[in-house]
Amino acid sequence: MTLDATQANAQIKDKGDARGRAARAGMRLRERLFAMRAQSHKLASPLSAEDQTVQAMDDASPTKWHLAHTSWFFETFVLVRHLPGYRVFDDSFHYCFNSYYEAEGPRHPRPFRGLLTRPPLDSVMAYRAHVDYALARLADSGAFAQEPVASLIELGINHEEQHQELLLTDILALFAQNPLRPAYSDAALPLPGKAQPVEWIAFNGGIEKAGADGAVFCFDNELPRHDVLVRPFRLASRPVTNGEWLEFMNDGGYDTASLWLSDGWAIVRKEEWRAPLYYEEREGRWMQMSLQGLVEPDPAAPVTHVSYYEADAFARWAGKRLPSEFEWEVAAAQAMDGDAPNDVAMEAYRPLPLSTAGKGRLRQMLGDVWEWTSSAYLPYPGFRAAPGAVGEYNGKFMVNQHVLRGGSCATARGHSRITYRNFFYPHQRWQFTGLRLADDGN
Amino acid sequence: MTLDATQANAQIKDKGDARGRAARAGMRLRERLFAMRAQSHKLASPLSAEDQTVQAMDDASPTKWHLAHTSWFFETFVLVRHLPGYRVFDDSFHYCFNSYYEAEGPRHPRPFRGLLTRPPLDSVMAYRAHVDYALARLADSGAFAQEPVASLIELGINHEEQHQELLLTDILALFAQNPLRPAYSDAALPLPGKAQPVEWIAFNGGIEKAGADGAVFCFDNELPRHDVLVRPFRLASRPVTNGEWLEFMNDGGYDTASLWLSDGWAIVRKEEWRAPLYYEEREGRWMQMSLQGLVEPDPAAPVTHVSYYEADAFARWAGKRLPSEFEWEVAAAQAMDGDAPNDVAMEAYRPLPLSTAGKGRLRQMLGDVWEWTSSAYLPYPGFRAAPGAVGEYNGKFMVNQHVLRGGSCATARGHSRITYRNFFYPHQRWQFTGLRLADDGN
Amino acid sequence: MTLDATQANAQIKDKGDARGRAARAGMRLRERLFAMRAQSHKLASPLSAEDQTVQAMDDASPTKWHLAHTSWFFETFVLVRHLPGYRVFDDSFHYCFNSYYEAEGPRHPRPFRGLLTRPPLDSVMAYRAHVDYALARLADSGAFAQEPVASLIELGINHEEQHQELLLTDILALFAQNPLRPAYSDAALPLPGKAQPVEWIAFNGGIEKAGADGAVFCFDNELPRHDVLVRPFRLASRPVTNGEWLEFMNDGGYDTASLWLSDGWAIVRKEEWRAPLYYEEREGRWMQMSLQGLVEPDPAAPVTHVSYYEADAFARWAGKRLPSEFEWEVAAAQAMDGDAPNDVAMEAYRPLPLSTAGKGRLRQMLGDVWEWTSSAYLPYPGFRAAPGAVGEYNGKFMVNQHVLRGGSCATARGHSRITYRNFFYPHQRWQFTGLRLADDGN
Amino acid sequence: MTLDATQANAQIKDKGDARGRAARAGMRLRERLFAMRAQSHKLASPLSAEDQTVQAMDDASPTKWHLAHTSWFFETFVLVRHLPGYRVFDDSFHYCFNSYYEAEGPRHPRPFRGLLTRPPLDSVMAYRAHVDYALARLADSGAFAQEPVASLIELGINHEEQHQELLLTDILALFAQNPLRPAYSDAALPLPGKAQPVEWIAFNGGIEKAGADGAVFCFDNELPRHDVLVRPFRLASRPVTNGEWLEFMNDGGYDTASLWLSDGWAIVRKEEWRAPLYYEEREGRWMQMSLQGLVEPDPAAPVTHVSYYEADAFARWAGKRLPSEFEWEVAAAQAMDGDAPNDVAMEAYRPLPLSTAGKGRLRQMLGDVWEWTSSAYLPYPGFRAAPGAVGEYNGKFMVNQHVLRGGSCATARGHSRITYRNFFYPHQRWQFTGLRLADDGN
Repeated sequence: MTLDATQANAQIKDKGDARGRAARAGMRLRERLFAMRAQSHKLASPLSAEDQTVQAMDDASPTKWHLAHTSWFFETFVLVRHLPGYRVFDDSFHYCFNSYYEAEGPRHPRPFRGLLTRPPLDSVMAYRAHVDYALARLADSGAFAQEPVASLIELGINHEEQHQELLLTDILALFAQNPLRPAYSDAALPLPGKAQPVEWIAFNGGIEKAGADGAVFCFDNELPRHDVLVRPFRLASRPVTNGEWLEFMNDGGYDTASLWLSDGWAIVRKEEWRAPLYYEEREGRWMQMSLQGLVEPDPAAPVTHVSYYEADAFARWAGKRLPSEFEWEVAAAQAMDGDAPNDVAMEAYRPLPLSTAGKGRLRQMLGDVWEWTSSAYLPYPGFRAAPGAVGEYNGKFMVNQHVLRGGSCATARGHSRITYRNFFYPHQRWQFTGLRLADDGN
Repeated sequence: MTLDATQANAQIKDKGDARGRAARAGMRLRERLFAMRAQSHKLASPLSAEDQTVQAMDDASPTKWHLAHTSWFFETFVLVRHLPGYRVFDDSFHYCFNSYYEAEGPRHPRPFRGLLTRPPLDSVMAYRAHVDYALARLADSGAFAQEPVASLIELGINHEEQHQELLLTDILALFAQNPLRPAYSDAALPLPGKAQPVEWIAFNGGIEKAGADGAVFCFDNELPRHDVLVRPFRLASRPVTNGEWLEFMNDGGYDTASLWLSDGWAIVRKEEWRAPLYYEEREGRWMQMSLQGLVEPDPAAPVTHVSYYEADAFARWAGKRLPSEFEWEVAAAQAMDGDAPNDVAMEAYRPLPLSTAGKGRLRQMLGDVWEWTSSAYLPYPGFRAAPGAVGEYNGKFMVNQHVLRGGSCATARGHSRITYRNFFYPHQRWQFTGLRLADDGN
Repeated sequence: MTLDATQANAQIKDKGDARGRAARAGMRLRERLFAMRAQSHKLASPLSAEDQTVQAMDDASPTKWHLAHTSWFFETFVLVRHLPGYRVFDDSFHYCFNSYYEAEGPRHPRPFRGLLTRPPLDSVMAYRAHVDYALARLADSGAFAQEPVASLIELGINHEEQHQELLLTDILALFAQNPLRPAYSDAALPLPGKAQPVEWIAFNGGIEKAGADGAVFCFDNELPRHDVLVRPFRLASRPVTNGEWLEFMNDGGYDTASLWLSDGWAIVRKEEWRAPLYYEEREGRWMQMSLQGLVEPDPAAPVTHVSYYEADAFARWAGKRLPSEFEWEVAAAQAMDGDAPNDVAMEAYRPLPLSTAGKGRLRQMLGDVWEWTSSAYLPYPGFRAAPGAVGEYNGKFMVNQHVLRGGSCATARGHSRITYRNFFYPHQRWQFTGLRLADDGN
Repeated sequence: MTLDATQANAQIKDKGDARGRAARAGMRLRERLFAMRAQSHKLASPLSAEDQTVQAMDDASPTKWHLAHTSWFFETFVLVRHLPGYRVFDDSFHYCFNSYYEAEGPRHPRPFRGLLTRPPLDSVMAYRAHVDYALARLADSGAFAQEPVASLIELGINHEEQHQELLLTDILALFAQNPLRPAYSDAALPLPGKAQPVEWIAFNGGIEKAGADGAVFCFDNELPRHDVLVRPFRLASRPVTNGEWLEFMNDGGYDTASLWLSDGWAIVRKEEWRAPLYYEEREGRWMQMSLQGLVEPDPAAPVTHVSYYEADAFARWAGKRLPSEFEWEVAAAQAMDGDAPNDVAMEAYRPLPLSTAGKGRLRQMLGDVWEWTSSAYLPYPGFRAAPGAVGEYNGKFMVNQHVLRGGSCATARGHSRITYRNFFYPHQRWQFTGLRLADDGN
């Protein structure tokens, strides 16, 4: 056997191996896809058709809309384009359930999503079944092992996971306005029982890498991986707690103009903010509306539902500051002890003590609260939006917002990662948003 | 037998007669009450729980809210006060389902009625059953034959009939914003198939009586019956039709400032009104959203969903004017040929040719469209609001609105009458509102 | 001399007499015109160019604008059409200083009148001189003795007198928002030093005449004179005073929902009304911003700057009601002891004790405060708007407003009369508006 | 003579030298101060008292207010604290003319600055004279040679220079809404007669210094000087011109959603933007309102009055991007050929060809238009706001805005510098704002 034949054989084997690897990856993708789709149903299951139809406010969407829109996403970007003979479930859904994709044409205006009592929930569930069946056929055809379908399925999974979190925050926004203050569920999302005393972890800074390397799935806004210059800094070992926030409130934090950014102070006065969003005073005691109904805030748990303005004011009151998104990412990466950042997935619905030994003692970095950073949400150097409608995913929102890092107790299990960039407007509070303090380490 | 004994016997018999009459009246009231309550369920029956929960706009309310509020009305003003041992169904409902009664304490704000996904529809239906059962017990006790219960039941019936009409107009407002333009029902509310040529009926005027005489039920705003001075006038034999309205549109009615009141012209430009509320242009043809879905407007049917401003502008364009509420009432009374005005009940869901022979040829006076009048909604001379919360029924709205007379195809059968005073703001259009022309008869 | 000759002579003499009378009327008109024009300058004279340029709020206009607009009125409706060879002062003024005449084409939007720093005040004064000179030439030509010029001049006089009142109310609105609370003038507009105890004057009612007979100038909305049916009523001998209003305030008037119309209560809460418009609390005492600066309210003087909602609530609190516009007019006419209503001119800037003896003891009917009536502002039966732009004068505002009768301390001397119908929206308070109580006399 | 004595002498001499240098610096400061104060008067001189009183919009202030506020700044932060026996001109001015300093107590609300017809312009001019006289006395006392007075005077000069620019942009905003489109002045602010063809200047990047070194005056937001990591990039040799902007317009730039940030697209549709702020179409041709009145836009001149959204969309349309603020600063510094960045002052009212030879050919970097950068306005690492009211100068605005670099034709001569950070909200357009393109140099 000649060298050439050996080489040819090896190539055939390589090709076969590659084909085998792709097929196995396709099968894993299929499993993840349908587990994720089932999770959406599980999240909606405590809710009546009435609960699922109503829109709490302009920023929020109804559960039914989330369930339909995520299916529309698969239908429009995967099935219509890549499953031969696919039959669109209902032409009118295209108008009803497009969110913001200008390239996909006119759509039902966002503030009126709550008016869609038709199509009924039953039809939306039938839509989901129709799409799931078609996705299964597409998987059967082997397409999940090939591009671009594999990537689009991955994007669709991550997209629907984002809406799973919104489903929870939006239903909380709805129930918080209901005079009955109903609970979404009796089972508490697991939050840490006891706050550790804060430790200050020091980092040296230097020229560091930030952003995703593309080895595993990431959103376009995490790309490209690039050098950042980070000065020496320290990060608190855990987020700010309800107990600490009450100190801020009792010290007149909401009445002291000098603690606040000018835009923040304007909204504090206009909206008469006196506490985080879901705090309310009942007979002289602070209570907090939550997915478990009206409860006493746990002083040891991270404060949630604070705006960027409040986080920034708290940090100033505490003589500290918010970390930049790169300080946060560099610290998280180093705390992993050299693990490649993209491999660290969060354990959803469970606080992740990122590392309890060794160099890093950073705690609750993923899975407790989204942490406001001092960084405006802007493109990384060299960022390019994808062409077509999918390219509207993240880039067009890169102004007027701030980056949040980490992940919250409502984030889907395994969804977030160290390079993940969440973003909201500085005044928004309906997400599970909190903060972690930083300083210059002097 | 002495004269005295005879008299005593007669008195006993009178008392017995009176008691018998009251008992029979109580029985009739009971029948009407439960027939009316059942009608509410029938009206809601084509609607899903989702449909019944959502609020179309600030002016409108969800079906579920109408069903609950009308029961709250019976509970609060009848059962709690007059049924010994009555147990309130759920304390929280008092806050949720009070509409506007300041005397009854704080209440859920009107624009947020659509957020009440809880209590669920099932609970509201249980609430209705609970209230119905208690009302039946109250009837059994004989209380319907006595005051004040008899009057309060009568008020409750008429109150819920008003909400039955709103239920229909509010669900139309919701479906008109749904991109699917769903039909509430296939069966058309009966409207006249063919417009008669307009005749002009002349009336002499003079000092006439207006207002209710209290012999049968009326709202407080129809009282007291009093003299009015009416000049000679003529009234059109039927309301303005869609066909005539299209002529107005085609003649540039919506573009001609000189036809409009100043406030009306401002809203025409701001809201870009070009047609009645539910008209929409589809491929160059005018269609009309209705309870039967999107249909072609019938040129022979009365135009509906026009504001006072539009009605007034149309009349000016036609070289006519709107009648005053007293002209309307005097004409209707005379058209009855001497019938006592309060005995004329409308046949709901069916156009009522008030009289096709004799002196009056006025048509479609009750049961087609509410007819805007030139009269501002003000108290009659000597009007006194009832004391307590029930007194908030009509009086506190006596500013900024105009009176409408007649009744619409959506008005409950038998609800309206010749002295009935409906009222809305001049810009409002979501009711079945139209107009009938008048002139000075010169 | 034959009979014919005698007749011919008489006719000549008649014609001559008529001509003479017209000439004398023209001369009187000329005198009144220029006296009125000079009065506008006198009213503006305490104000700097800065004061005259700024607009206090959307409802108000700058002094400079009033001065220019009233001249534009003469230019557009008199000079351009009736003075041969008249040269328009500046073409751009037509756009700048048209108020609301749709028939006269596009115009500078009302809320931006305060941005017109150009044309400068000097140019506006030159404009006035130019118009005055042309009006003098027109008078010299004898045109004031003929129609339609005579009527248009009369209308122009009355129009500018209305703006003289607005000039005062609008400058007060401006100065009330200035932290220095400047005085327009040291000299108080004469107000009654001492309130008389209230007497209740009874009137019999019946079929009465209302409206102007056209013998002297009136606005179109006072026409035609017509029969009204008035029930027996009583009218208070004088308006409600500041002292009485303080009792209402101290009795919780602004905190008691049951006293208020629903629309009124909504604005009380939204705008946090606690007192008449220009009342403000300084170190626990109520002060009142006025044309004399910040002063203590005189308990004996009529309360001013109250809305219809407040007037109506006060009357309800007092167990009385507001009079209708016809009750007011009938009472005023009878108080005159048979004088023809149109001959009664008010003495401006001086409270007019309409009659201190005889049948009527009604006081302060003209020249103190505009008195809110219970009557909505609607056309009289048979009202016809004039053709063309002048016809936009009053008719197009006949919705959503209430009639005020009488006249205020800021009304031009001789401007008002018993048949005069002023009108404002129920929430408006920047005019000198007060109230007089009425009841049914039982 | 001992060494000690020699040293002592030298020290004395050093002290004397230092004292002399300080005295000379104090004299120069005095000269600059009064020249700057006179320049404010010169800028106001073409304007009438009326022009100087009115406020064009919420974002803008009246000329009179600028003149008074800048004097209040000297009075409050310099004279009251550092001139013994200083008598405050008028206590009420403190309330009227504080801009936004919360630490200085309540103040007249910004949107109502245009209502201040009192104090009159004459009083404001007297206020300026009063403050100038006191500043001269303070200078006479030698205080300008010492801290903290020297720094506060410097700050006051720079502060008033900022208001000089605002005075011009705000009067343009006023005149642009005047139907007469008046010119502020006939003399054009000098703008380049002819656009050079664009050249693309390449820069290597690396770790560079940015921010002021404190050797000469700077604002607190330029501190501290710190390292930044800059990637290789190219910068256009000149700003984008009107001619190029017209190409963007003609190519449908304002109609193409995919070019725009989502927030930008929303405002484009809501406000119906079709061109830069002061462009208007007249008979089919684009004209531009300017300080010289309505003129044809010069195709060779930099486009002005564009928002960040428009600048960003244009760059995307052109296949380029906006530079970061550090790219801009590094490029400007290198273009100086090694000159210390802080020594480069702009020549106001004259386009500055920063360098026409050698390495850099960058043109019009200072003195033409403020150039939007891609950088959000955030604190530099280590930034600390000054304590007290002066500390409110810049820091509290560090959210929701973007940095602009350079300087405009309206910027005071010598005011700007390479490290200068101007900042506005992304939607604001009334400043002389334009853009310069960048790319990654590939």
